[in-house]
Amino acid sequence: MKTIYAFSEGSKKMKDLLGGKGANLAEMTRLGLPVPPGFTLTTETCLYYLEHEGYPENYEQELEDKLQELEQNMGQKFGNVEDPLLVSVRSGARVSMPGMMDTVLNLGLNDDTIKGVIEKTGNERFAYDSYRRFVQMFGDVVLEVPHHHFEDALTTIKEKKGARLDTDLKAEDWMELVQTFKQIVHDTTGNPFPEDPKKQLRLSIEAVFKSWNNKRAITYRNLNGIPHNIGTAVNIQTMVFGNMGDTSGTGVAFTRCPSTGENMFYGEYLMNAQGEDVVAGIRTPEPLTKLGEVMPDVYKELVEIRDQLEDHYRDMQDLEFTIEKGRLFILQTRDGKRTAQAALRIAVEMVEEKLITKEDALLRVDPNQLKQLLHPSIAMDAKYDVLAKGLPASPGAATGKVVFDADTAAEWAEEGESVILVRKETSPEDIHGMHAAQGILTSTGGNTSHAAVVCRGMGKCCVAGAGEVIVDYKKSEFRVGDTVIKKGEEITLNGTIGEVIVGQVEMCEPEVSGYFETIMLWSDDVREMRVRTNADTPEDCQVARDFGAEGIGLCRTEHMFFAEDRIAIMREVILAKDDETRRAKAVEKLRPVQKEDFVGIFKVMNGFPVTIRLLDPPLHEFLPSLDAHEKIAALSKEMGLSVDDLKKIIGNLHEINPMLGHRGCRLGITCPELYAMQVRAIMQAAFECHEQGITVIPEIEVPLIGEFEEFKAVHKIAMDVISKLGEIPFEYKIGTMIEIPRACLTAHKIAEKADFLSFGTNDLTQLTYGYSRDDAGSFLAHYIEAGILTDDPTETIDQIGVGSLMQTCVNLGRETKPDLEIGICGEHGGEPRSVEFCHTIGLDYVSCSPYRVPIARLAAAQAVLKEKAGELAPRKARSLKKTENEPATVY
Amino acid sequence: MKTIYAFSEGSKKMKDLLGGKGANLAEMTRLGLPVPPGFTLTTETCLYYLEHEGYPENYEQELEDKLQELEQNMGQKFGNVEDPLLVSVRSGARVSMPGMMDTVLNLGLNDDTIKGVIEKTGNERFAYDSYRRFVQMFGDVVLEVPHHHFEDALTTIKEKKGARLDTDLKAEDWMELVQTFKQIVHDTTGNPFPEDPKKQLRLSIEAVFKSWNNKRAITYRNLNGIPHNIGTAVNIQTMVFGNMGDTSGTGVAFTRCPSTGENMFYGEYLMNAQGEDVVAGIRTPEPLTKLGEVMPDVYKELVEIRDQLEDHYRDMQDLEFTIEKGRLFILQTRDGKRTAQAALRIAVEMVEEKLITKEDALLRVDPNQLKQLLHPSIAMDAKYDVLAKGLPASPGAATGKVVFDADTAAEWAEEGESVILVRKETSPEDIHGMHAAQGILTSTGGNTSHAAVVCRGMGKCCVAGAGEVIVDYKKSEFRVGDTVIKKGEEITLNGTIGEVIVGQVEMCEPEVSGYFETIMLWSDDVREMRVRTNADTPEDCQVARDFGAEGIGLCRTEHMFFAEDRIAIMREVILAKDDETRRAKAVEKLRPVQKEDFVGIFKVMNGFPVTIRLLDPPLHEFLPSLDAHEKIAALSKEMGLSVDDLKKIIGNLHEINPMLGHRGCRLGITCPELYAMQVRAIMQAAFECHEQGITVIPEIEVPLIGEFEEFKAVHKIAMDVISKLGEIPFEYKIGTMIEIPRACLTAHKIAEKADFLSFGTNDLTQLTYGYSRDDAGSFLAHYIEAGILTDDPTETIDQIGVGSLMQTCVNLGRETKPDLEIGICGEHGGEPRSVEFCHTIGLDYVSCSPYRVPIARLAAAQAVLKEKAGELAPRKARSLKKTENEPATVY
Repeated sequence: MKTIYAFSEGSKKMKDLLGGKGANLAEMTRLGLPVPPGFTLTTETCLYYLEHEGYPENYEQELEDKLQELEQNMGQKFGNVEDPLLVSVRSGARVSMPGMMDTVLNLGLNDDTIKGVIEKTGNERFAYDSYRRFVQMFGDVVLEVPHHHFEDALTTIKEKKGARLDTDLKAEDWMELVQTFKQIVHDTTGNPFPEDPKKQLRLSIEAVFKSWNNKRAITYRNLNGIPHNIGTAVNIQTMVFGNMGDTSGTGVAFTRCPSTGENMFYGEYLMNAQGEDVVAGIRTPEPLTKLGEVMPDVYKELVEIRDQLEDHYRDMQDLEFTIEKGRLFILQTRDGKRTAQAALRIAVEMVEEKLITKEDALLRVDPNQLKQLLHPSIAMDAKYDVLAKGLPASPGAATGKVVFDADTAAEWAEEGESVILVRKETSPEDIHGMHAAQGILTSTGGNTSHAAVVCRGMGKCCVAGAGEVIVDYKKSEFRVGDTVIKKGEEITLNGTIGEVIVGQVEMCEPEVSGYFETIMLWSDDVREMRVRTNADTPEDCQVARDFGAEGIGLCRTEHMFFAEDRIAIMREVILAKDDETRRAKAVEKLRPVQKEDFVGIFKVMNGFPVTIRLLDPPLHEFLPSLDAHEKIAALSKEMGLSVDDLKKIIGNLHEINPMLGHRGCRLGITCPELYAMQVRAIMQAAFECHEQGITVIPEIEVPLIGEFEEFKAVHKIAMDVISKLGEIPFEYKIGTMIEIPRACLTAHKIAEKADFLSFGTNDLTQLTYGYSRDDAGSFLAHYIEAGILTDDPTETIDQIGVGSLMQTCVNLGRETKPDLEIGICGEHGGEPRSVEFCHTIGLDYVSCSPYRVPIARLAAAQAVLKEKAGELAPRKARSLKKTENEPATVY
Repeated sequence: MKTIYAFSEGSKKMKDLLGGKGANLAEMTRLGLPVPPGFTLTTETCLYYLEHEGYPENYEQELEDKLQELEQNMGQKFGNVEDPLLVSVRSGARVSMPGMMDTVLNLGLNDDTIKGVIEKTGNERFAYDSYRRFVQMFGDVVLEVPHHHFEDALTTIKEKKGARLDTDLKAEDWMELVQTFKQIVHDTTGNPFPEDPKKQLRLSIEAVFKSWNNKRAITYRNLNGIPHNIGTAVNIQTMVFGNMGDTSGTGVAFTRCPSTGENMFYGEYLMNAQGEDVVAGIRTPEPLTKLGEVMPDVYKELVEIRDQLEDHYRDMQDLEFTIEKGRLFILQTRDGKRTAQAALRIAVEMVEEKLITKEDALLRVDPNQLKQLLHPSIAMDAKYDVLAKGLPASPGAATGKVVFDADTAAEWAEEGESVILVRKETSPEDIHGMHAAQGILTSTGGNTSHAAVVCRGMGKCCVAGAGEVIVDYKKSEFRVGDTVIKKGEEITLNGTIGEVIVGQVEMCEPEVSGYFETIMLWSDDVREMRVRTNADTPEDCQVARDFGAEGIGLCRTEHMFFAEDRIAIMREVILAKDDETRRAKAVEKLRPVQKEDFVGIFKVMNGFPVTIRLLDPPLHEFLPSLDAHEKIAALSKEMGLSVDDLKKIIGNLHEINPMLGHRGCRLGITCPELYAMQVRAIMQAAFECHEQGITVIPEIEVPLIGEFEEFKAVHKIAMDVISKLGEIPFEYKIGTMIEIPRACLTAHKIAEKADFLSFGTNDLTQLTYGYSRDDAGSFLAHYIEAGILTDDPTETIDQIGVGSLMQTCVNLGRETKPDLEIGICGEHGGEPRSVEFCHTIGLDYVSCSPYRVPIARLAAAQAVLKEKAGELAPRKARSLKKTENEPATVY
């Protein structure tokens, strides 16, 4: 196993082995760019070291050889008093983890070699400043001396010398400080500071390797979904100095504007400075254009390098450069981070410039980033303090006055106030308040809690499960530590990253440019899966259509029952539970209103399939809770029932685990009038629309099927209704949600009768893991922090567990019915990695909330491209590719 | 497709085609026994008829041919006025369904043929009595005339004639009644009574076929787990008459005593009577021995037939015979139903008599029947009224005074009262009351509810989920309809079949004879799976050992924390939740008591493995519920906390779906002190016992694992503790419960570190179906009644769904570790069909409550024998067969 590669031996293709930084240094070296020479210790060596706490046999020899090569190359020698070789030691993993691991600069300095540096540079102050920086960095990073010791010493000497800034200190001050630092190291570690450069190098390499597993790095990887088993490379590179006087400098540049994507050379630099000075913000850097005036030759060279790099990498680059005494060096290049807006523009323009293909362009935009464009958001440069953190349950940002109940939210909103609804958790009874509010904050519940799901559906910002927030309904306030926020006080939510902020913050409105449209159209040409939406009202449907949805994958009918006039009827139904005739009569009152709901939706979705799920939640959700004494009193009056009797009914409907209780098709089977009414309403609405020339494709969906006989029973209820309607002049389907593990395992039976299957991955995930979305908050955060779970399975499909059930379901279902239509309507349907998984297992469509439709369109296209590139397993099925003559709809 | 078989064409092997009755009639015919001739319409014909509402093409001709054959055989003719052929038409499915389908006797009579019968028998009264019976039966069964019409007419004529008994009526009265009956038929159906015998026959056959799908039959099949798609055969048999005078008679006999199993000829008969008279109980039948005195020749022939049948069938037979004018006919034979006691004795004695092999003997005992022997039960002939029905959650019977809370149960029991604890549902806080009570009745919850599981563990009778029972804690009473039972009133529970009875009922004590022991020993020789037990206390362990348990498969540690002194410490732990130091200190107080628990168990289980599950339930179970104001007040005092603070803590621990919440290893990982303490206690107890010369095999079990990293985290907690204890001088294991679907799907990973897996099929079933055991009552009963579920999956493993996950788990786990030990500790481990399934998928052991251990031992042996016979799929794995020198332990 070769443990070390000189920059001249590697290439950009060797990222896994050399890390991102190392691979790019090698690539630039191969391109002939002015890269300070050096070599890279491989990630494999890192993994070997971490596992064995030692190195492979050949490592020592290779390190010696590479050092010698470098010395020859530079005409310098490690530890040589006349002309010492100085190097930097930098980590560099396959994936960028900025600031997470350790770096040592100026390595090779000691009390001897410093003389050579002084001699060579003629700049004693620079030399000692570099020396003290090295001792400080080495002490901190390698020897683990708490860094405040060094800072204290610096402050002390500045006070002693009457210096206000570092720059006020002179060479001898730095010299003195070097000795003080060394004393600190000796005092703290019990050993003198190592003077031997090779020992320094070895210790630094070890420190960088070990830093792969420091807490900071592990947390970062957990947060960013980076695997823990890839290790970091270590780059040893000859030092160049931007702080050697007025013809030296350092800077960073982007080959295009990272904010807007405009094709311009964008960057900043500082003369007579080291890299950290640009970042530290003590001095204000100059814009790059200025360099053209100051050092026109260097600037010209830099512009040529910019063109060469873009031409070579065919992507916007983020590069670091240093000018040492008028000579330009490139220290790093990598694909530049950019805003969503910039990503779209760069991708489209690079196609126009023939730098890349359309397919490349689609892969250049991170679908997750599109969220930035689809919601109001906090301005990029806004400054604010975070009061509490929660889950980023629904993106966007909102400011408003705090209220603690749905009724107040609705009232205040009516009066023109912006309100934020703060609840421990929300329930369907809160819907009107959620509609009225600008944003929702809950103290419990996860990414698929009621609040989160509903808010995403509404495109409304939501921070969920903010555990530090203690809601006190009685006092109408919430507390975070010592801070108390009372009803009516203003807060801001940042749903995109899950922040709660006191007061107002500067916002920007969503902006969608023509580049966005272009990328969406290109995506539609490529993708094989359809993209539908989860929407319950004609308004939501219209939003989704505008975003390009090709049908409704999930229309939840229960939300329709929570309007005031309807919930009253629904309650009548429930309270007549034991009297079939009364119950049937009450149910029948719901039919005309339901029919009108569906007419509205069919009209908007003209020509597209509409999957309507029959009633799903348990009945108690339609009744007030037992401790809502006022509501119970009111309802008892309204229904002509004694309070005691009413409470008894509510008590009887109480369930210990409502999620696992009497709901979904279980309710449909034990109380068949409800489903019969819904089916009749759906089909009558479809008839009415059909007669008006609207193309209707109703898909009736049965929730919570776990056993074929359940489906058969509901199918019979539906067909009994439909067969009485005469000949049906339009296409319709009866299928089922797949959300119970057992449904996956028995899909071959279910497929005998079902026209389609649609994965409800929210419930499926909860049951497969045995988590409840409402209760998992208390341990899920801990699990992710501790690395027990790499991802939150409520956010992205757990491919190994839930995914294998889905795969089983698809296989079994299509064994029975090869052309069975299968989709997904859980919120995972709008999450890019999940969309890719759905592509691979052969789903026909994904369905997600309206605001995620563009994300899904792009992700579905990327899945096709990644499959072609061999990055995804081959798609496992028939594809329902769009036919040519269907309308393409874009935002 | 041949639709009809003459008795001489069939054999006992053709049960599927000819039904049980038909196959046995054929077999007896082949043996040369005096069976009245006839033929059988096949079950296939029935299924064809039901599906097509018509017959196969060849049927009509075959029926004609068979009738002709029969006429020739008997020298009689259908409809012939001189010597008419009379037949019976009887259903007979593969499985006996007594009384569920229809029968018509004396078919062939009409106003013409009656003359022939009178002529031939010279008994006009007999002839008309037979005729009216026929019209009545035909009217009722075939023409669906409500039978009260006939009964009313009979009453009227008796009043008119001044007759007290039927026997007081004369020939002309019966003749008159025949005409009245026919008029009733005409009036009710609008058509005259059919006089053509062939038409009568066809209509009767159709009626029997249709009766397969009458409500009564469907319900019976659902209740008895008989498939709906097997159909019934129809037997047409020449009539013989036991009511032709003093040399005629009829009777039933068992070849051995069905109560005790004693090898004696047991039966009853009536002279001058038809079969139904014996059953109806109007006249008292004579014991069979008496027949030897009255008709010694007939009796001798009957005894010879008895010997011949036992010799041939090699099982105890239940036979029906008729004597017509001194001539003996055998009308039916079948394997006789018997008590558990009789089954054991017959099986053992038949082996001794060399009639059958030991293997045959093991298959002759129904493991489910053994329950009768393991609990006190209601006397077989006790008469009583049932107040309400519930689930037969834990077998046995008990009488006692009703109480509604655990404290009162404990108090009253202390004073020597027998009490029945009646609750809506039970919780771990009720344990002391459940221990004290004779039996438990709950109004909600299923077969795996807390009450059910705990009661089975205690061998205590329980009726669960009795939905009609309305418990009113405030009034200290429960109601069923209008009946009110107050605290202190006496009721009896029959847990074996789920009945609630007012007052006392006659009981019998459990009785276990030597035959039982013999069967158990034979089972142990045959079975390949071990049988362990689920037991939490040394006392329960001892009971299980006495029943032959070979280890503990599940020792639940949480029950140990509910004793008064311990729950106080546990509460301290919980209330110190946010203060690690205080929490660790409180946890440490639990260690010595836990250690003592385990010492006691290890001692009893000397030489056998003991699987101890780490703490499983959510913390709120250890605190009073929010509405228990008194308990909260008391606890707040005890803990020095304000009531408000305490309520806040309880409120924070509240979960919406506690079953899917913060429990099991989730708790162990977020609060690691608890598991560390338990592991230390287990290992220290094992050390102490080991030093005393006891052979300890602790198996530490982690609950609720769904992801490998969870197991790894807990494994580390455990190993951190164990590694500090020095070298371990005994074998120990660390493994996990498999109760989350995802654990099955990722078993290959889990097996990398786990030493054993044990299926917790209670939770696994709930999650696979998405049912909660506490809430499913409201629809599960309906599902089973409606045939949506054939079996309650909480009772017997759902092989298609849950079973396929189990199979996946075994395959994946043993892919990683071929000799991985895998068992089951859900209550399914004591249910015979589930035990067979566990054998097939290759489990090493089953574990069940102590009182089910003998059932599991026998079922495990039967699984081996059924596999050999090709009735079960081949066992899929390595087997941990008992080694020779291990102790065999029997009751």
